[in-house]
Amino acid sequence: MNTMRQDAEKIIKESISSVLPDEAVTRALKDFTPCKGKVILVAAGKAAWQMAHAAVKALGSVNAGIVITKYGHVNGAIPGVTCYEAGHPVPDENSFAATEKALSLVSNLHCDDTVLFLLSGGGSALFESPLIPGKELQSITEELLSSGADIVSINTIRKRLSKVKGGRFALKCMPAKVFSIVLSDIIGNPLDMIASGPAYPDASTCEQALYIAEKYNLKLSEQTRNLLMNETPKALNNISTYVTGSVQELCKAAKISCEKLGYKTIILTDVLSCEASEAGSFLGSIAKSNKNATENLAFIAGGETIVHLRGTGKGGRNQELALSAAFKTEGIENVAVFSIGSDGTDGPTDAAGGYVDGATIKTIRKAGYDPEEMLCNNDAYNALKISQGLIITGPTGTNVNDVSVALIRKVNEHVRF
Amino acid sequence: MNTMRQDAEKIIKESISSVLPDEAVTRALKDFTPCKGKVILVAAGKAAWQMAHAAVKALGSVNAGIVITKYGHVNGAIPGVTCYEAGHPVPDENSFAATEKALSLVSNLHCDDTVLFLLSGGGSALFESPLIPGKELQSITEELLSSGADIVSINTIRKRLSKVKGGRFALKCMPAKVFSIVLSDIIGNPLDMIASGPAYPDASTCEQALYIAEKYNLKLSEQTRNLLMNETPKALNNISTYVTGSVQELCKAAKISCEKLGYKTIILTDVLSCEASEAGSFLGSIAKSNKNATENLAFIAGGETIVHLRGTGKGGRNQELALSAAFKTEGIENVAVFSIGSDGTDGPTDAAGGYVDGATIKTIRKAGYDPEEMLCNNDAYNALKISQGLIITGPTGTNVNDVSVALIRKVNEHVRF
Repeated sequence: MNTMRQDAEKIIKESISSVLPDEAVTRALKDFTPCKGKVILVAAGKAAWQMAHAAVKALGSVNAGIVITKYGHVNGAIPGVTCYEAGHPVPDENSFAATEKALSLVSNLHCDDTVLFLLSGGGSALFESPLIPGKELQSITEELLSSGADIVSINTIRKRLSKVKGGRFALKCMPAKVFSIVLSDIIGNPLDMIASGPAYPDASTCEQALYIAEKYNLKLSEQTRNLLMNETPKALNNISTYVTGSVQELCKAAKISCEKLGYKTIILTDVLSCEASEAGSFLGSIAKSNKNATENLAFIAGGETIVHLRGTGKGGRNQELALSAAFKTEGIENVAVFSIGSDGTDGPTDAAGGYVDGATIKTIRKAGYDPEEMLCNNDAYNALKISQGLIITGPTGTNVNDVSVALIRKVNEHVRF
Repeated sequence: MNTMRQDAEKIIKESISSVLPDEAVTRALKDFTPCKGKVILVAAGKAAWQMAHAAVKALGSVNAGIVITKYGHVNGAIPGVTCYEAGHPVPDENSFAATEKALSLVSNLHCDDTVLFLLSGGGSALFESPLIPGKELQSITEELLSSGADIVSINTIRKRLSKVKGGRFALKCMPAKVFSIVLSDIIGNPLDMIASGPAYPDASTCEQALYIAEKYNLKLSEQTRNLLMNETPKALNNISTYVTGSVQELCKAAKISCEKLGYKTIILTDVLSCEASEAGSFLGSIAKSNKNATENLAFIAGGETIVHLRGTGKGGRNQELALSAAFKTEGIENVAVFSIGSDGTDGPTDAAGGYVDGATIKTIRKAGYDPEEMLCNNDAYNALKISQGLIITGPTGTNVNDVSVALIRKVNEHVRF
């Protein structure tokens, strides 16, 4: 029989691969039935190359296509597709030029043509063609940021200063249809927020934009002020959108994997956002209270916890969650808790997350370290290194938040650690 | 159909009454089959009068009995039982005198006699007869406290300086049998810790006691030092123990009540101990993620959360948990979260806890207050007062920690708030 650690590794592997761009795009394309005309592929974001590569592989071919991704992220030629690299997180002239190329590719299309639009994280900077000089746009953004404006306010302004954001890209594609596949890394998936929604009706209004400009006392040129009064599309009848690779899919994949291994599984939440160590304590409490379960159980919590740094140690939110859970599972032989970031990089470390069980705290103490002190010092990485609880996957090529799992084996099914 | 608030009130009422001393003692006595001889009742603790009253009512009569409780806690005569009031939390001469009376009541018993021993919170101070002068015992306790010794260390010392603690009371009852009913308010119920375990084998050793004396550099008289070397009983063959009114029973009662109301119910944990507001965020996330449930759901978490005060507001851990959860349930019509302290007193307030639903945050904002700021200022009481979310029960007469519940109604069963 597998150890619980082996189960954890298997669950991690299966859930991450189900949200990798390749699998996510292939799954989404099952819902894609292009019209009779041409298929034009436009992919933007950090995962644009991978998504385009998977799409062309799945479809066989496209009539034309463009990839706009971050420097160093193009990984070879894709038949029929031109690949561009550009600036991220700050857009540069290459972003603007490549986006212009995309716009010319989708102009003059027919009503039986289809634009396959593949969007991933980073699309906001990479897919941009401003209606005002790039420098002016940047200084407005900086002014807003330094005044403490939130991202919704910033986007409300920027959407109106862009040729593609706030649904305007879909408008440019008309009369062709737009089928968007969005690889989401924002909890709750607000589609007009991801990359400022180039192919989604915009919820913000000119009135709000003007209010924000006044509130933060923005110094605007006459041209810019006029643009703020240009409304973004509120309805688009040529779009359909498929959100994939979200934290919900990550949780569902983890559930399927747990169930294959014989765990009765509950997804508690996919919008977790509390303090990492406290989430760990809660999840550890759940494991502890269920230690006498009469069947194998798994509890899944997805989302993105936070860490308020108090110390100077090394770690990440997933490692911190796991270490905190270990204090609850201490000495209990048939429970384990693990937590991972789907991008494979948890905090500034080479680990994706952490795994703990009933032996973790004892092992750390035996090595002469104080696990409480290490948790207080945000030093989960070094604590889990001692207990061999680091989970190393390497960069995965996707980023759809985190998943944390508590596993409980019914006592007679348990292999001692 | 009930509103969710009405459901909450019903669940609260039913779960608290199931852990009240009367119901708890009556339930425990179903397992009680006295021998042929006399039944002697000894009740100590803050709930001693209530427990004794319920026991005599359930049994019909006892041959003799004694109640030792806090000043002001005797609530009338009990047939065959003498009631004493004494000092708490610091024991006084009345504690010692009453405990001596209890000891004489259980001396010279026969092997077919039974001592019914009813123990509740506060028993450590109320049930005590020291082997050294009371003042010396107090100064040792204070010395240990000021050196930062933990409660386990303090009890390891005190058990050896007492005629009744650390299992010695049960030893004094021999050859009679002792049937203990323990009304527990300590998470995890370590029976040798509750009131220092007068009728339970002691886990601590003389060696540990001497180590603690040395570690904290205690100034001890020769008599006291000798007493530390007197071992406490490690095995007792005349005892049986029934723990009741625990947080586990509180959770189970809440589950039964939820199920009666048609909620499919899961007890997540009964050992919750994390930060109250973070537990609220986690529980609120669970409610939010399940808002599209196809059946009515309830998630229960019991335990005792903590609050690290950052502000100057008014509140308690249950109110803080509830207010924090409200940010997750904001705008969702078919979910609610509530949390209560079973003693009916949450922090320094007249509320037992708090109730929130999808309307809570909006109501507070509409009244011109900032709920985020109020949470940061530990001012959940005033926030929930505005949203009519305070749960007022008055003192309940028991204390078995807290229970928090997330309720989700399947959409078509929901009555709009």
